Amino acid sequence: MNIKTAIKGRRTVRRFSQKTVSADKIKQLIDAGRVAACGGNMQRLRYVVVQDDKELLGNIFDTTAWGGFVQPKRNPVPGETAPTAFLVLTCKPDDATGAAIDAGAAIANIQLMAYALGLGCCWIGAYKHERVDSLLELDGMQSVFLVALGYPAESPVMEDIGIDDPAPYYLDADDVLHVPKYSVEAITEWR
Amino acid sequence: MNIKTAIKGRRTVRRFSQKTVSADKIKQLIDAGRVAACGGNMQRLRYVVVQDDKELLGNIFDTTAWGGFVQPKRNPVPGETAPTAFLVLTCKPDDATGAAIDAGAAIANIQLMAYALGLGCCWIGAYKHERVDSLLELDGMQSVFLVALGYPAESPVMEDIGIDDPAPYYLDADDVLHVPKYSVEAITEWR
Repeated sequence: MNIKTAIKGRRTVRRFSQKTVSADKIKQLIDAGRVAACGGNMQRLRYVVVQDDKELLGNIFDTTAWGGFVQPKRNPVPGETAPTAFLVLTCKPDDATGAAIDAGAAIANIQLMAYALGLGCCWIGAYKHERVDSLLELDGMQSVFLVALGYPAESPVMEDIGIDDPAPYYLDADDVLHVPKYSVEAITEWR
Repeated sequence: MNIKTAIKGRRTVRRFSQKTVSADKIKQLIDAGRVAACGGNMQRLRYVVVQDDKELLGNIFDTTAWGGFVQPKRNPVPGETAPTAFLVLTCKPDDATGAAIDAGAAIANIQLMAYALGLGCCWIGAYKHERVDSLLELDGMQSVFLVALGYPAESPVMEDIGIDDPAPYYLDADDVLHVPKYSVEAITEWR
């Protein structure tokens, strides 16, 4: 897939079909994340793939919050529309702020690769961090973000808006999620 | 350009030719950054393009630090290898931490688009933030990161390493920058 097509077409997915993602595809996602730019090439991030252990998968899912701006809320349903895997990005506790910034870049790469592979994903910061760290029995590490992963069962659409337009995402009458994004002109100043 | 080619081939560039980047290409970069995922679709980031005002460009360049791990240091030289433009990502001061994480994702998109357009760039956090904010006379905003931009005058290469190998980047005998990256196997655990 062309890079521009991926960047413009990729959207966050919060509803998933229940087909399992292959280990090979998951490796391709992590391969995309690991080569993202990071501060000083320190490579602080590690990855835990949660997929085979269904109890662990369910317990992690139970710690997550989804799409706060969508009314009515449409939390994914386990066994129906929930993610079939989580990537858990972890780091050492002593530089968690830097690692979170690095994670932004790594997850952007992961999202684009997921889209190119026909997958969908959702970058999640709203989850019970201590509970997830405890469930995973992380040794000297802590989780930074989750990436919920699976085959997409929805196709959100983006729309350009001006700087004074309402920016929250919303569901239309056909239950399609719309994601307004400020136009280039709205957010750019030239010197 | 194919998405996987862009993700794997893109490297940070710290030496630039002195050809000017067109406004159209710069708009394509910001267009890539603005559609990156961000927390709650809050879209906290704004962009200042510094290119035409050469005095401002030079003053911002003077606040930057480059490639701390490369010995001997090879800071770009104004008029020879320095970036010909800066993108300055800005945000409101009240949520700078969240904006910095969002910026990681936006800059990853920008880096990939830059590579696809034949450009090179360097994500810079090591600069005098207050000085740049003052130079730009930002009104109620602060800078988050700089992206140095231009046509590349070097071609760094990536190499895969194991978890116990040395990770700092280095120059070889031909003055080529090597960027070691941990392999997928080295940083992934499966559950």
